[in-house]
Amino acid sequence: MSAATDKLIIFDTTLRDGEQSPGVTLNTEEKIEIARQLSRLGVDVLEAGFPIASPGDFNAVQRIAREVGPLMEGRTGEGRVNQEMVICGLARSTKNDIQTAYDAVKEAPRHRIHVFLATSDIHLEFKLKISREQCKERIAEMVGFAKSLCQDIEFSPEDAGRSDRAFLCEALAVAIRAGATTLNIPDTVGYNTPQEYGDLIRHLKANTAGAESVVFSTHCHDDLGLATANTLAGISGGARQVEVTINGIGERAGNTSLEEVVMNIHTHPSAYPVHHTINTRLFFSTSRMVEDLSGMVVQANKAIVGRNAFLHESGIHQDGVLKNKQTYEIIRPEDVGVTTGNLALGKHSGRHAFKTKLEDLGYGGAALSETQFQMAFTRFKDLADSKKSGVTDGDMHALVADVRSSSLVAGVEPAADEPEAAGAGEVAAVQRFALRGLQVITGVGITPTATVTLHDAVSGAEATDVALANNGPIEATFSAIQRIVGINIELLSFSVAATSEGQDTLGKASVRISRVQASPDAAATGGEAKFSGLASDVDIITASARAYIAAVNRMVSHDEADNRASHRDRSVGI
Amino acid sequence: MSAATDKLIIFDTTLRDGEQSPGVTLNTEEKIEIARQLSRLGVDVLEAGFPIASPGDFNAVQRIAREVGPLMEGRTGEGRVNQEMVICGLARSTKNDIQTAYDAVKEAPRHRIHVFLATSDIHLEFKLKISREQCKERIAEMVGFAKSLCQDIEFSPEDAGRSDRAFLCEALAVAIRAGATTLNIPDTVGYNTPQEYGDLIRHLKANTAGAESVVFSTHCHDDLGLATANTLAGISGGARQVEVTINGIGERAGNTSLEEVVMNIHTHPSAYPVHHTINTRLFFSTSRMVEDLSGMVVQANKAIVGRNAFLHESGIHQDGVLKNKQTYEIIRPEDVGVTTGNLALGKHSGRHAFKTKLEDLGYGGAALSETQFQMAFTRFKDLADSKKSGVTDGDMHALVADVRSSSLVAGVEPAADEPEAAGAGEVAAVQRFALRGLQVITGVGITPTATVTLHDAVSGAEATDVALANNGPIEATFSAIQRIVGINIELLSFSVAATSEGQDTLGKASVRISRVQASPDAAATGGEAKFSGLASDVDIITASARAYIAAVNRMVSHDEADNRASHRDRSVGI
Repeated sequence: MSAATDKLIIFDTTLRDGEQSPGVTLNTEEKIEIARQLSRLGVDVLEAGFPIASPGDFNAVQRIAREVGPLMEGRTGEGRVNQEMVICGLARSTKNDIQTAYDAVKEAPRHRIHVFLATSDIHLEFKLKISREQCKERIAEMVGFAKSLCQDIEFSPEDAGRSDRAFLCEALAVAIRAGATTLNIPDTVGYNTPQEYGDLIRHLKANTAGAESVVFSTHCHDDLGLATANTLAGISGGARQVEVTINGIGERAGNTSLEEVVMNIHTHPSAYPVHHTINTRLFFSTSRMVEDLSGMVVQANKAIVGRNAFLHESGIHQDGVLKNKQTYEIIRPEDVGVTTGNLALGKHSGRHAFKTKLEDLGYGGAALSETQFQMAFTRFKDLADSKKSGVTDGDMHALVADVRSSSLVAGVEPAADEPEAAGAGEVAAVQRFALRGLQVITGVGITPTATVTLHDAVSGAEATDVALANNGPIEATFSAIQRIVGINIELLSFSVAATSEGQDTLGKASVRISRVQASPDAAATGGEAKFSGLASDVDIITASARAYIAAVNRMVSHDEADNRASHRDRSVGI
Repeated sequence: MSAATDKLIIFDTTLRDGEQSPGVTLNTEEKIEIARQLSRLGVDVLEAGFPIASPGDFNAVQRIAREVGPLMEGRTGEGRVNQEMVICGLARSTKNDIQTAYDAVKEAPRHRIHVFLATSDIHLEFKLKISREQCKERIAEMVGFAKSLCQDIEFSPEDAGRSDRAFLCEALAVAIRAGATTLNIPDTVGYNTPQEYGDLIRHLKANTAGAESVVFSTHCHDDLGLATANTLAGISGGARQVEVTINGIGERAGNTSLEEVVMNIHTHPSAYPVHHTINTRLFFSTSRMVEDLSGMVVQANKAIVGRNAFLHESGIHQDGVLKNKQTYEIIRPEDVGVTTGNLALGKHSGRHAFKTKLEDLGYGGAALSETQFQMAFTRFKDLADSKKSGVTDGDMHALVADVRSSSLVAGVEPAADEPEAAGAGEVAAVQRFALRGLQVITGVGITPTATVTLHDAVSGAEATDVALANNGPIEATFSAIQRIVGINIELLSFSVAATSEGQDTLGKASVRISRVQASPDAAATGGEAKFSGLASDVDIITASARAYIAAVNRMVSHDEADNRASHRDRSVGI
């Protein structure tokens, strides 16, 4: 973090490009939750979404601008600039897109419009069906229009990596003249080599009229496993902003990982001419949050945030580490929020020990609301009573995810910095359905049956129903819940995993559901609203039932179905 | 694959460095299965293990040398050299290690000894406690001893990335004079930048006496997400061998991914001065096999082999792809064995359609023995009867994994190229325990109970027992099985996941178990034998029971427990 180097601007697009990952659909509350965490992490610019895509997307971006844009508790940190996060909205090169993006972000103290237009011949010819001249005219007009609304304007030439270089320099010069302050150079198909991509940035900086007055930005994809290397090559080539996502999620093989780029700079302070102001100690908890809410599992051997990233199997390594930490360890686990002591909490651990452990795990500050903290502590005491081996760090992460999943309901969860907005009673009240009874019988040669009792907060009554299934007890359980709630639900995905090793570990269940579409037309758009639920329990069938109910509660409290209908058709290719 | 470029030697260390991943322990049959697949894939050199580590490791390497070393059916392919795979064994720089490695690999038609010694001052001082001169003397003596046994000798200076360059050149020159034919340069801690690592290889080639007569090799780790970039930089710097693993598994954040390096070369034939002879169409099935057997899950956004790697979410991309395939797709999915048509098989699909589908998915040739094919087809017909939505590609991969898991028992599975060695009856006979009955009752406020009936092939009798559990129906089921088999078993890990989306998907259960150690000393070494089991069923509890029984069958048929006791202490740091 030398003052002699330039500050690298960390532009996070987890909520825009990351959310384009197949199978990922975050709802508004999940997006706000992630946005808050990214603010705590110290992200400089947050691309909150693509507001024109649907009213639901617009609403999510607008709420992030309002609620997360202002300087919040926990954002500041040692040596960091105490400044608001810039909230950015994406727009195609049309007035309607740009106006909508501006309307969504304008309430953030610092806001940006990100306009894009393809510049490669293959895109101009096949997709846009315009000439190079028309392309430049449109850039001038649309960047100019954006500038009339807002000072901070980013322009991206889509498929820059395959665009003619001379034309690309002309197009970028047009964008600068029209008011762009950041130029983002996407390697859309993840095809560039580090050498090529670094040279491209260097070339554009040297040959674009006005380049000295703007910031160049990288945007890389990992199709060939080179996103991090390409991004670093871009920095060496002169880029001072990087577009990244947590865990590297994104379309196909994903985007560049925020945590990998930052830790490269962190561990090689003299190899790159930049420094960062990210609070790296929040990497692990941020990674877990994005994993849980997106459903995109992080592999154990993922750099920086994988569960094995700091585990040494081999005896020779272990010996080396003991003799001299420097022999093998280049990043201290605690630098990225990995706790290695892993001291389990037991049934005698009190409120203070629980809170301290949460802080150690990266859930300090305002990461949990008071209501959520209470719920988590109650769950923890129940769990500590039943688990002989103690409550592990893995269990703790699962507990936090569980509490967040069951307390995130539209418009009700109080903002972390205004706990007076809603009390515990209110949160509980909108969890419409609660599991009161479950009995499951299954086996080989036995037709699985499930009897479920739910309490309905709206009617105040309990209802019980039973269902059988061809395909096991989980299907029977979900069918019985469907009968009670009276909604025709499609199960999109389901998984269960242990949160730690050993016999009495928690089972963590994750489900994703949508309404069965009434009309074939609605189904054909592929744009049905999806709702996810997460829950942990020592019994995986109970965990599954609770996860399913959490998802149903979101579905019934939400009205995003129509809003999101056209989402897929509008997500974009940079 | 231009004849004008050098052939890049693909050295796969999935079974040695990959197997050092925390939590991964492959047994001999699993290693042979993977070795066969790697031979089909066209791997040039296979590092089969570290023979001195334990008699079990020695045995696995020896069996691979004998059974997979000779030219096998399915290895040849279009444009490929029809040549045996080199089988390599690792050794520290001691005569005992080297002799043992040689004894393990010598029966392969082509074999190699891989000797290593650290050359960085930090290792010499803290770990080895020897001087630089003593280091060179030991290299001369030990490489010379290896050369007296075998012509093909690889030498690795451990922690080369942090070794003094002048001394490193001296040490490598000593290794060449003593007979080394390949020099492998590990970036052990994953700390090098691509620039540094490429320069290092270039420098060593230019400044080591005798360098022109040997092959330089890369060995990179992914701690900072740069393993692939560093490996490619090494190739540009003059390396002509790369050490890689399937899915990039390995210690901490893992090794360089075989599939990423090969596809970079494949898609950039003019950017790197090398060509490869890998059958890329087997990447996806090979990745799945290693994922299943190692238990190391591949994240959806992993380059090349992730499940999302070829899925396009965004409408604009989809539109682009339809208009002109070249717009976004740089690798055709079928090039790496990903089937995109995904035509589900139904209950009317016959033997021929099933076989064709298996071939499409990368299980052609001798990938399944005749016995395994029969088992898979029987399972498929049962599944097709119960699944309304058809049997998907995901289900098919799970079926293959299930059949492999339940038929891989020590010394019994017939070699794929000698199906006459054992018939279906024999394989069935050694599956000692088979699930005949299961009844599970669980729920909220209900003590989970499981009643299990197993058939014991040794006694010929059936036995039934019941167990209850504090922690859910899976624990109750496993406890009941333990009571019947009479072994005190520790559950190390357990997970369940859906094999495809939708309501009637298969649940795939994966368990890993070990015997509870009788003595605290044995437990303290952390070297207990581990056994894994995999099974798929529409009922996840039945799947879990079958996976557990598969693991128990391996445990009772195996005698590796003692053999592997010292495994962890001997795995190595390159």
